Amino acid sequence: MLLGSVEGGGTKFVCAVGNEDYRVLHKTQFPTTDPQTTIKKTIEFFQQFPDLAALSIASFGPLELQKNNPHYGYITDTPKIKWRQTDLVGPIKKALNIPIYFTTDVNASAYGEYVTSQLYNEKIDSLVYYTIGTGVGGGAVLDGKILQGIGHPEMGHTFLKRHPDDLEFAGICPYHKDCLEGLVAGPTFEARLGIPGPQVPKDHHVWDIMAYYVAQAAIQQTMILRPDNIVFGGGVMSEEFLNKVRQQFEQLLNSYVHVPDLNKYLQMPRVKENGSATLGNFALAYRVNEE
Amino acid sequence: MLLGSVEGGGTKFVCAVGNEDYRVLHKTQFPTTDPQTTIKKTIEFFQQFPDLAALSIASFGPLELQKNNPHYGYITDTPKIKWRQTDLVGPIKKALNIPIYFTTDVNASAYGEYVTSQLYNEKIDSLVYYTIGTGVGGGAVLDGKILQGIGHPEMGHTFLKRHPDDLEFAGICPYHKDCLEGLVAGPTFEARLGIPGPQVPKDHHVWDIMAYYVAQAAIQQTMILRPDNIVFGGGVMSEEFLNKVRQQFEQLLNSYVHVPDLNKYLQMPRVKENGSATLGNFALAYRVNEE
Repeated sequence: MLLGSVEGGGTKFVCAVGNEDYRVLHKTQFPTTDPQTTIKKTIEFFQQFPDLAALSIASFGPLELQKNNPHYGYITDTPKIKWRQTDLVGPIKKALNIPIYFTTDVNASAYGEYVTSQLYNEKIDSLVYYTIGTGVGGGAVLDGKILQGIGHPEMGHTFLKRHPDDLEFAGICPYHKDCLEGLVAGPTFEARLGIPGPQVPKDHHVWDIMAYYVAQAAIQQTMILRPDNIVFGGGVMSEEFLNKVRQQFEQLLNSYVHVPDLNKYLQMPRVKENGSATLGNFALAYRVNEE
Repeated sequence: MLLGSVEGGGTKFVCAVGNEDYRVLHKTQFPTTDPQTTIKKTIEFFQQFPDLAALSIASFGPLELQKNNPHYGYITDTPKIKWRQTDLVGPIKKALNIPIYFTTDVNASAYGEYVTSQLYNEKIDSLVYYTIGTGVGGGAVLDGKILQGIGHPEMGHTFLKRHPDDLEFAGICPYHKDCLEGLVAGPTFEARLGIPGPQVPKDHHVWDIMAYYVAQAAIQQTMILRPDNIVFGGGVMSEEFLNKVRQQFEQLLNSYVHVPDLNKYLQMPRVKENGSATLGNFALAYRVNEE
């Protein structure tokens, strides 16, 4: 069986075809330009595989995921003006005529990590996936189902206790200034220090400040969802930075509730090379008719 | 059919017997003293009703709710020293020999509000219930099921952005100082102003500060769970205070995601006279054998 994956990101689209073992057989990527061109390239890639059984599309948001909404399948009020109110699923569905699952990029990543945890025979019932990159977002799987309410989560936009050495920084979120995304997204390095993230030394104090905030995001999840596992992906993350997050988390939690060994509880993605979303998409495409 | 409800609070136990319409038929309450005396009184109350079909116990926590844990049914590491590691369910189960459901006080309240929303024919799939009182806690119902992970939620212990006029206040949570509970629980009035909450004028600026924090709790839920409805109960809440919370919520959210009309989205309990937990208990007792 051939399964399709679309990861629609703000800067690039990654399209892949895999088999029912979730192995990638074919893959391509191209820049995210205007919707018409980008969607056309997506369709052309998958049209090479007439045996494709199903497809899952994981996109930057915000998205309309309510099936009874006339705008189901749309990217809605995104800051990317050209993509506002764009029907993403509709034209692809029309061209390929196969079942399509539609969700957020972080939901697909969370699902990919969850599926992998099951394949590894870990005892994981619930899992949160954060991406800390150009933006910050999170998705969750609870008892095998993607968490979804009146809309998809926007976990990057909660407020946090400010670090005492960071009180002057306004934050960069256009909506909330100093929400989680506004304090720890990749571009905050440039905003705080005037140099891009990759050039910031690993022993710079800014990493302690960042860890203080990411640890608070993990505390929120720990107190609200009580998940088995919290995974951190995205370009800002590294095992070294995650160690700082673990230390701050331990101090902030202050043993208030029991959590698993922090080296396992707070971890980098199981799926390597940013593959969580692709794997999650394959698994979601495989299950698309179960809904 | 007769159903039983125990609300085990830090200061008092409320025991009730109701019918399958969730109407209270008999009720008693007594102070929470030592476990042996308090549990004995609880058992004696229900022994008057030999036809009792099932019972639900909603208690202050933390609780062990994992059925495969040898300490299932216990109150665990509570600050109330006499109650530490107390088997609450065991002796009641032994004496009454009926099915018993066991959960937190706020979970039962959340469930009571959820069930009532269904009876009122509201379109509610998911709901969060916060109590802002002597302590602060929260529970959630998602698609009709109580949210539960590796333990029950402890929603009162997340961190928040401090109000600019409240930076000097240390917070009163013995574990986290200025977490949500440490900033808005009832005793913070005394700690901030030297006078108890009921004596604080309704136009005092402290209410704006409190509203700023409670609104951030609502933002957390909105961004993580995307519930249909967030209910605020507990002694600190009033419709007047909740209006301040709604105003702060609207400013902090800044239209980032769509939420229902705030007068409905953020609301006081549907069940009057602190009856949410009792009603929730009746409904949980009624369903205890469905698990």
